Amino acid sequence: MDYEKFYASRVSIMRPSDIRELLKWSLDKSVISFAGGLPDPKLLPKSFELEGCFEYLMAKNEYAFQYGETEGVGELKKEVVRFSKKYGNIDANENQVIITTGSQQALDIISRLFIDKGDYVIVELPTYLAALQVFNLSEPRYVGIQMDEKGMRTDILEDKLRELKSNGILPKFVYTVPTCQNPSGTSMSIDRRKHLLELASKYDFLIVEDDPYGYITFGDEKVERIKAMDKEGRVIYLSTFSKIFSPGLRVGWVIASEELIRSIAIAKQGMDLSTSPVSQYIALFAMEKGIIEKRIPIIVGEYKKKRDVMLQSLESYMPSETRWTKPIGGMFIFVWLKDMLDTKLMLEKAIKNYKVSYVPGRSFFIDGSGRNTMRLNFSYPSEEQIREGIRRLSNLIKEEYGSTS
Amino acid sequence: MDYEKFYASRVSIMRPSDIRELLKWSLDKSVISFAGGLPDPKLLPKSFELEGCFEYLMAKNEYAFQYGETEGVGELKKEVVRFSKKYGNIDANENQVIITTGSQQALDIISRLFIDKGDYVIVELPTYLAALQVFNLSEPRYVGIQMDEKGMRTDILEDKLRELKSNGILPKFVYTVPTCQNPSGTSMSIDRRKHLLELASKYDFLIVEDDPYGYITFGDEKVERIKAMDKEGRVIYLSTFSKIFSPGLRVGWVIASEELIRSIAIAKQGMDLSTSPVSQYIALFAMEKGIIEKRIPIIVGEYKKKRDVMLQSLESYMPSETRWTKPIGGMFIFVWLKDMLDTKLMLEKAIKNYKVSYVPGRSFFIDGSGRNTMRLNFSYPSEEQIREGIRRLSNLIKEEYGSTS
Repeated sequence: MDYEKFYASRVSIMRPSDIRELLKWSLDKSVISFAGGLPDPKLLPKSFELEGCFEYLMAKNEYAFQYGETEGVGELKKEVVRFSKKYGNIDANENQVIITTGSQQALDIISRLFIDKGDYVIVELPTYLAALQVFNLSEPRYVGIQMDEKGMRTDILEDKLRELKSNGILPKFVYTVPTCQNPSGTSMSIDRRKHLLELASKYDFLIVEDDPYGYITFGDEKVERIKAMDKEGRVIYLSTFSKIFSPGLRVGWVIASEELIRSIAIAKQGMDLSTSPVSQYIALFAMEKGIIEKRIPIIVGEYKKKRDVMLQSLESYMPSETRWTKPIGGMFIFVWLKDMLDTKLMLEKAIKNYKVSYVPGRSFFIDGSGRNTMRLNFSYPSEEQIREGIRRLSNLIKEEYGSTS
Repeated sequence: MDYEKFYASRVSIMRPSDIRELLKWSLDKSVISFAGGLPDPKLLPKSFELEGCFEYLMAKNEYAFQYGETEGVGELKKEVVRFSKKYGNIDANENQVIITTGSQQALDIISRLFIDKGDYVIVELPTYLAALQVFNLSEPRYVGIQMDEKGMRTDILEDKLRELKSNGILPKFVYTVPTCQNPSGTSMSIDRRKHLLELASKYDFLIVEDDPYGYITFGDEKVERIKAMDKEGRVIYLSTFSKIFSPGLRVGWVIASEELIRSIAIAKQGMDLSTSPVSQYIALFAMEKGIIEKRIPIIVGEYKKKRDVMLQSLESYMPSETRWTKPIGGMFIFVWLKDMLDTKLMLEKAIKNYKVSYVPGRSFFIDGSGRNTMRLNFSYPSEEQIREGIRRLSNLIKEEYGSTS
C-alpha cells in the first residue's frame, strides 16, 4: 500500500513548525537560542509551592485518577470564572467555561466546528504559527490583515470585510492574539479592540481571542480583554495555565456562550474524552492555594527584566535600518531587517558561525511576506545569554548588511 | 448570526454518547448502574503505591512541568517498548511508539490522517461507540461485519472485501477491538486474527487494533496481539494506561511503522502540542517502580470475581430466550433479549421502576441492528450490586417477556 497516497496531502499541510525543528538545534549548548517559546525553567512550579499537592491529589483520588467530565472539573471551572473576573475583567458563569488540553486543543476544536473547506478565516500578519497549522487541517481560505505598533489594522480589516461582503462572502471568524502577540509582541489598542467588536457586529462574524499572555503584562495599566467588552457573545476567549503556572499540565480554558460551550464539549468528547483530571486537580490546587496569584508578579518581574535587557542590547548593538517591537509583556520581540535580507537563508550561518538562533518570520505570514523578519524569545534565555546572543546576532546582521550594501 | 448554520451538522454527527448521558443518571445512588465503563474506584492508584512520586516529579521539574516533545517522553516510550514485548509479545523500537492523550486521541488522529469523506471504513457489529463518534467527523462510509463468540466473522469480511474490490473500492482500514471488546466482551480467535492479517495483505488495507483490555485478561493463556503477528507493518496498535493504572492521566500509546508514527506526530502537534508531561512522568514513575506490573494481577483478580458473579447471577435470574457473552477479561458483558424487545424503550422503566441501568446496544451497531441488546459493565459496581442489579434487571426482562408473549 502506498501510505503516501493516504496522508501525503494532509502531512504537507501539517508540516512540523520551524519552531519545533529549531528547538532541536538549540540543544547544542554553545548556541544561544532565541528560537524557542518556552517559559523560564527557573520559574516552573517549585516543591515548596506544591507542598501538600500530592496529599490533595490522593484525597481526591477517585476523581483525579478516574475518567472525568468532558467539560472539566467543576471546581476548576469555578476558579477560572473567579480568576477571569479578577484579572481579566471578564464576566462569565461556569456553563460558559470549558477546560481544554491546552489552548492548542481549543484552536483545534474551533477549527473543526467552524471551518469548512474553502471558508474564509481572517488572521493577523504575522500570526501564531500553530494556529495556522491546525486551521490548515480544515483547508480554509485566509485573509491576512497588516499590523502596526497598535496591533491589527482594523481600518484595513473593514475594507476587506466590505470587499468580501460585496462578493457575498461572510468570514467564519477573525483570529487574533491581541495582547503581547506571538510572534510580534505587539498589543492591540483599546480603540481597535472596540472597532473590531463593532465590525464583528456589523459584518456578523465571531472573534477568536487567544490570550495566553494577557496575565503577564509588565505595566500597571490593565489591558481590557475584547471578551470583557463583548455584548453579543461573539468572542470565543482562550487562555491557559501554560504561561502563568506550567505548560506541562496541558490545561487551558475557553470562555464563550453556553450554546457554543455545549458544542465544544461534544466535539472535545470525541477528541480526548476529557483533559487529564490529574492535571486539572494540580491546577485547581495551585488556584485554591493562591500559588498562581503569588507567582504571577514574580514571573512578570523576571520577564520584564529580560525584556529590558533585550531591548537595551538591541539598542546598543543593532545596526541602523533595523527595527523591532517593544512588547508590554509576554515572551517575544519581533525584528525587521533591511528588505532585501532573508532571515531563513541567514539562519544556518547564524547557528554555525555565530552560535545564535532565532525563528525566521516568514512562516508567520500567510501572504508569504516577512522574509526579512525574525522572532526573538526573551523568556527562556538568561540575561547574560540575551546580552551575548544579541551581540552575536548583531554581528551577523552587520555582516549581511555589509555584503548587501 | 445563526450559529446553528455553522455547526449543526457537525454537532449532529458528534452527538454525545448514550453512555456519557447515562453516567449522569447513575448519580442517583438508589440506581445500580451497569451503564458506565469506569474502572473499579477501589483499584485506582493508592498513596502508598505513589509514595515518592511527588519528589520524582519535582526532581524532573524542568521536564515534567515544561513543554514536551510531541512524540512523548523518551523514557516512557522505552518503558512502553519493554512492557509491550513482555506482556504483549510485540517487537517495536522507540521510533515506532508515540504517546497520545488517551487512545481516544489516537483514534482521532487516525481518523484525520486516513479518512476522506466517503471513504470506506470497516467496523465490527457491534463496535466501540466513541470510535464511531470520532470517525464520523470525517464522514466515512461504514461496512459492518457480524461477530460471533469468536469475534469478527472474517469469512463475511472476505466476502465484503471481494464485493468492494469488484466495485473498485479499497477500504482505508479495518477497526477492531479484538480482545474483550467494548461493548460485546468477545475476543477474536487466533485463527481469525491470522485470517484478518492475510486479508489485509491480500486486499491491501491497514488494521487498527485497539487494545485497552488485552492486559487484563483473566485466564492463563496469553492472547496473541494481531500486531505481534504483523509482518508487513499493516497494524496500527493502540493501548492505554487507563485500564491498568489510571484513566485520569489520559495517557495512551500507539505502536506502528516509524513512517506512520512520524505522520501521527505531525498531526498530534497541531492538536495539543504534546500529551501532558506531568501525566507522562507519573506513568513513567509507575512503570519504573513496577507499580503497574504489581497491580495488574490485583485488577485481574478483582474483575474476574466480578465477572463470575455477574455470569452466575445471569444464569440464576435471567429468563430463557436471553443470552449473553462470556468474556475472558475486560469490563463488559453483552446481552441479547427476545428479538421483539427494544432495550432503549425499556431503559426509562429500568431506571425509574427497577432502579438499574445499562447501555442499550443499538448505538453500537452502525447498521441499526441490536435493538434487543444491552451492554453491562461489571468493573465498577460491587459484587453485591452486581447480584442485586442483575436480579432487578431480570425482573424487568421477565415482565417485558410476559407482556410480549
